[in-house]
Amino acid sequence: MAKSKPLILVTNDDGFYASGLHALIDAVKELGDVFVVAPDRPQSGMGHAITINSTLRVSRMHHFGVAGEYTCSGTPVDCVKMAVNKLLPRKPDLCVSGINHGANHSINIIYSGTMSAAVESAIEGIPSLGLSLLDYSLEADFTAAAHYSTKLARRVLESGLPAGVCLNVNIPKLPAEKLKGIKVCRQAYGTWVEELDERTDPAGRTYFWLTGAFKNFEEGAEDTDAWALSNGYVSVVPVQFDMTAHKALAGLKDIEN
Amino acid sequence: MAKSKPLILVTNDDGFYASGLHALIDAVKELGDVFVVAPDRPQSGMGHAITINSTLRVSRMHHFGVAGEYTCSGTPVDCVKMAVNKLLPRKPDLCVSGINHGANHSINIIYSGTMSAAVESAIEGIPSLGLSLLDYSLEADFTAAAHYSTKLARRVLESGLPAGVCLNVNIPKLPAEKLKGIKVCRQAYGTWVEELDERTDPAGRTYFWLTGAFKNFEEGAEDTDAWALSNGYVSVVPVQFDMTAHKALAGLKDIEN
Repeated sequence: MAKSKPLILVTNDDGFYASGLHALIDAVKELGDVFVVAPDRPQSGMGHAITINSTLRVSRMHHFGVAGEYTCSGTPVDCVKMAVNKLLPRKPDLCVSGINHGANHSINIIYSGTMSAAVESAIEGIPSLGLSLLDYSLEADFTAAAHYSTKLARRVLESGLPAGVCLNVNIPKLPAEKLKGIKVCRQAYGTWVEELDERTDPAGRTYFWLTGAFKNFEEGAEDTDAWALSNGYVSVVPVQFDMTAHKALAGLKDIEN
Repeated sequence: MAKSKPLILVTNDDGFYASGLHALIDAVKELGDVFVVAPDRPQSGMGHAITINSTLRVSRMHHFGVAGEYTCSGTPVDCVKMAVNKLLPRKPDLCVSGINHGANHSINIIYSGTMSAAVESAIEGIPSLGLSLLDYSLEADFTAAAHYSTKLARRVLESGLPAGVCLNVNIPKLPAEKLKGIKVCRQAYGTWVEELDERTDPAGRTYFWLTGAFKNFEEGAEDTDAWALSNGYVSVVPVQFDMTAHKALAGLKDIEN
């Protein structure tokens, strides 16, 4: 009996009609049977949110011509739960999330719906990677990002990943020939210096837009994703969902007293 | 000059009118000047979501009689960003989030708005703790939980926490005299065995409720939060926002080739 083709779940946080999702489907469809379960509208910045106070809807789609394709009214994490528990014929061999329109390096992983879908897959025991291009434009050129998506998805399908680990992949906004290759690195320590852009609505009431700029606290650290990206490399950070600060644990034991 | 009183930010994910928030304010108000910035409605399961595609509103409240109190239309993480960047007179000395109506041990930290507010505070360099009572009832008895909230908040104000670390505190649903004390421990490895409860709306269309049961994969592991809670202890897990799987990093270097 011929070995069955790998089953690949594709999701994202920019929604079913984002061009980054289309690019990712094209990048992985040569590797197996593709099922798409993506949010029915943009869900950027949703982090690891799940929908528990309202209902979820699912619609079957016929847009990409793959093995199965659905929109879900929930968050990216809901999409993974819906895919694994309801929509797919079996547990997928791989989950790819993206390609996100915009960066998800450093602390941004924690706010990112793209990466949360990958992390949720890891929690479910599915090898997974989240992919992000450092270009927020709706018309971004995904050519180089798609090339690395195929390469890394094939690598993970063939060799797997350590238990409980997924990959956070970011691709600089550069033409393919300018990219220097892949760096496996750690999450840089940085944060958003926030501004709350204060405005007045037509009724005279105040409202705010969350905005700001990312500040890297480790500018020179060559083992970080932020450094790799600034220097023309595709960054790959292995990510875990165990958030225990193991190094701090012993030193805090006196809290028990 | 007399030393000024500590500034304490109180937030939660169950919303401004949840009784767990009230209990937490009462538990920490003896320790400093309290500012409350809480969601204007329940935000459970919001994980580390932030509001970037819509606007934020803030309302000044006069409910608890503390130094400052506000509702915010956003997520728990938005509340922290709004507090730190807009509403508080200076960076707080402590952030406490909760007391959550329901458990946030093991993997639940990643879905929890309560813990995400604490993690966001840690990212901002503010010592912080998230507190959760293992009782989902709106009429839960917060007496014992409040006692431990005061004790741990005082400990963190006095001794601080390692950089980049906050505390995930869970309290069993037990009367104070039955609690055996505090265990400093690690996040148990477990996951939700999901069900998607499928129903039909009055128009004949399908919808789903996300539901399920938590499955602990490490039942016997005495160094985990799940074990501590099952055995009558208050669990305290030090939590970090660096999600790099440092142990897996070297073994994945060949991805660069």
